[in-house]
Amino acid sequence: MTHVVTLNAGSSSMKFGLFELTDDDPIMVCTGAVERIGEPEPLVKAKSSDGSVLASGTAGEIRDHAAALDWVLNLLARSFPNSDVTAVGHRVVHGGPEIDAPVPLTKASIQELDKLSPFAPLHQPHNLAGARAAMERFPNADQIACFDTAFHRNHPWENDVFALPREYYDKGVRRYGFHGLSYEFISDHMAKTAPLLHEGRVVVAHLGNGASMCAMIGGRSVGSTMGFSALDGLPMGSRCGQLDPGVVLYLMDQEGLSADEISDLLFRKSGLLGLSGLSNDMRTLEKADTRESRQAISYFTFRIRRELGAMAAILGGIDALVFTGGIGENSRLVRERVCSGMGWLGIELNPDANADNDRIISTDLSRVVVMAIPTNEELVIARAAADLLAKRPRLRTA
Amino acid sequence: MTHVVTLNAGSSSMKFGLFELTDDDPIMVCTGAVERIGEPEPLVKAKSSDGSVLASGTAGEIRDHAAALDWVLNLLARSFPNSDVTAVGHRVVHGGPEIDAPVPLTKASIQELDKLSPFAPLHQPHNLAGARAAMERFPNADQIACFDTAFHRNHPWENDVFALPREYYDKGVRRYGFHGLSYEFISDHMAKTAPLLHEGRVVVAHLGNGASMCAMIGGRSVGSTMGFSALDGLPMGSRCGQLDPGVVLYLMDQEGLSADEISDLLFRKSGLLGLSGLSNDMRTLEKADTRESRQAISYFTFRIRRELGAMAAILGGIDALVFTGGIGENSRLVRERVCSGMGWLGIELNPDANADNDRIISTDLSRVVVMAIPTNEELVIARAAADLLAKRPRLRTA
Repeated sequence: MTHVVTLNAGSSSMKFGLFELTDDDPIMVCTGAVERIGEPEPLVKAKSSDGSVLASGTAGEIRDHAAALDWVLNLLARSFPNSDVTAVGHRVVHGGPEIDAPVPLTKASIQELDKLSPFAPLHQPHNLAGARAAMERFPNADQIACFDTAFHRNHPWENDVFALPREYYDKGVRRYGFHGLSYEFISDHMAKTAPLLHEGRVVVAHLGNGASMCAMIGGRSVGSTMGFSALDGLPMGSRCGQLDPGVVLYLMDQEGLSADEISDLLFRKSGLLGLSGLSNDMRTLEKADTRESRQAISYFTFRIRRELGAMAAILGGIDALVFTGGIGENSRLVRERVCSGMGWLGIELNPDANADNDRIISTDLSRVVVMAIPTNEELVIARAAADLLAKRPRLRTA
Repeated sequence: MTHVVTLNAGSSSMKFGLFELTDDDPIMVCTGAVERIGEPEPLVKAKSSDGSVLASGTAGEIRDHAAALDWVLNLLARSFPNSDVTAVGHRVVHGGPEIDAPVPLTKASIQELDKLSPFAPLHQPHNLAGARAAMERFPNADQIACFDTAFHRNHPWENDVFALPREYYDKGVRRYGFHGLSYEFISDHMAKTAPLLHEGRVVVAHLGNGASMCAMIGGRSVGSTMGFSALDGLPMGSRCGQLDPGVVLYLMDQEGLSADEISDLLFRKSGLLGLSGLSNDMRTLEKADTRESRQAISYFTFRIRRELGAMAAILGGIDALVFTGGIGENSRLVRERVCSGMGWLGIELNPDANADNDRIISTDLSRVVVMAIPTNEELVIARAAADLLAKRPRLRTA
């Protein structure tokens, strides 16, 4: 049996998956994560597709991404001794202005992707560190990168540019949009299960610890609430979302903060965490029910509603609204708040279906179909790796 | 005859008006402006309500706002020797978190308003310099300040806050919104001429060299596209409008720009000017018809459409859309582009009425009434001064 490993390396974490290649869709064998890489008590977790727990708890020292990968590979070798890893698929945050599809990774292409690090200094270097480590450990496997930006790369110009002097657009200061793997999953899923809706005007709200919305026509992205960085658009767990650039000037000029301090503030101390003063986790906020946590939730849903109107304007009205991501798939409260009073847009929520976490949560008479669909970014990576293998003979068999 | 002088002092300009007080609305006697204050060849212009030109062209040295005010007062004394100025009304950009109405100016209140300068460093000091100069020249007249922020000060909390740690809201980092005098004029005008629409859900697009949109219910602002500074929201003549805060971090971190350099870039070199590489003036761009000027116009109207959807989401649909400001009142092209394909929102433009610059430019069957109404910020200031005088006995007659 041949397999694909998927890797999603963040600044201090590495998520992974093992998929079995079949003639049809890749089948998930196990998923897991290493967290707190480089910190005193790293956390590890893994479970197989049958639900059995393969790892859980703290691990010994895991000082960098290479060590995290070693941990992952030891676990996989121990748990699935017969697996034959023929390809490794990597989630890479930034593909730059040109890349709109997965890219085979070589030392040269990694070097090219490294040049995009200034656009995503908090993510890109870690993604590529994961790729470099995997190339060392699997010298004979194909490596492929899947980009969070690629799905959005064919936006109309008006939705790709900022109103800066034109040289900045040429330098790559553009509205990239992110969460592209999640949107691609939803688009593919709808093409199979709701082909007529898929052809229409669809807004997808990916609401997790990171959050954004995507406007699609015919399954292709034409707009996103995220822009140049992973900061813009909707408020997130600890990221600010939309912010007046004048506020950043104020922080520089009046508060004397450095770029690093502002970055730390906007990426790690803002969003739901900043407004609630309590947590970046929607589940915690819903349970807490303090004035501040209620206000944080209100702001979150207010901004989603506001951007839903903006996405509808881009599309000229909407046919379907899809919730996904941890919050979108699970928070009845957030979905209900977003859809409440949206009759002007054609949305009528079915409260029972919403409470039951059904796939379709609008009424039969709602002009807009509202859905909640679990996303699966790892599967999108595994599919890309499978496609790559199918398209050309394996390098090592050459 | 008693009169009111209105003053609108910018960084290098001073606009003014002379109004005659009546039992009814103040009547405009003359308006004009001094431009390029402190530069080699200052420009002056003034015309009276009958259209006769009182001043036009370059003037001798006008080194500061006090000198500009002297020039204005000399002109008014020469042209209208019988005028008796009993009040001076000032446009002041920032009233801070609390002020939601005009405020009588004293040395003490000016000192208080000066504390808000960190929120609007490019505008507030100049506005207050104009007020100080006027207090010296008119020691016996009442002075009153009208604020661009005041009209928006009762937004719901969700539309007043950014997703930053809560201490920033308490410090005054809020979504203030601007162009309040223009919105107040439109609201008053609709209350008189279209009272039923005024009660409903109205979006006003103030499109001039500065540009923003305001969502109103019952004539009161509940949302604005502008936020903390005059940079946010719609792109403007030379200002960027909405910008990912990550771009500012990129400019700091990767390009090494200082706060002053970024401020200069975002306030003076961006917007229509930056995208067209040609001009900040919509009339010039419409005539030029180059690829870049067409793209700049496309971006401008795209963002207005996007934010129209967002404002509709705040209001739960809309009953009226009002264009105002230099571009809104005059650009048939911009209005046509904004309204095109907006049937999903209930908008149907009447192309003939739009071409004729009529007040009502939607069809009789359009669910949303679309209007073009000339704004008059000076009249709003003159009214505020007249109200102040009517409410209490004149100080100098005490």
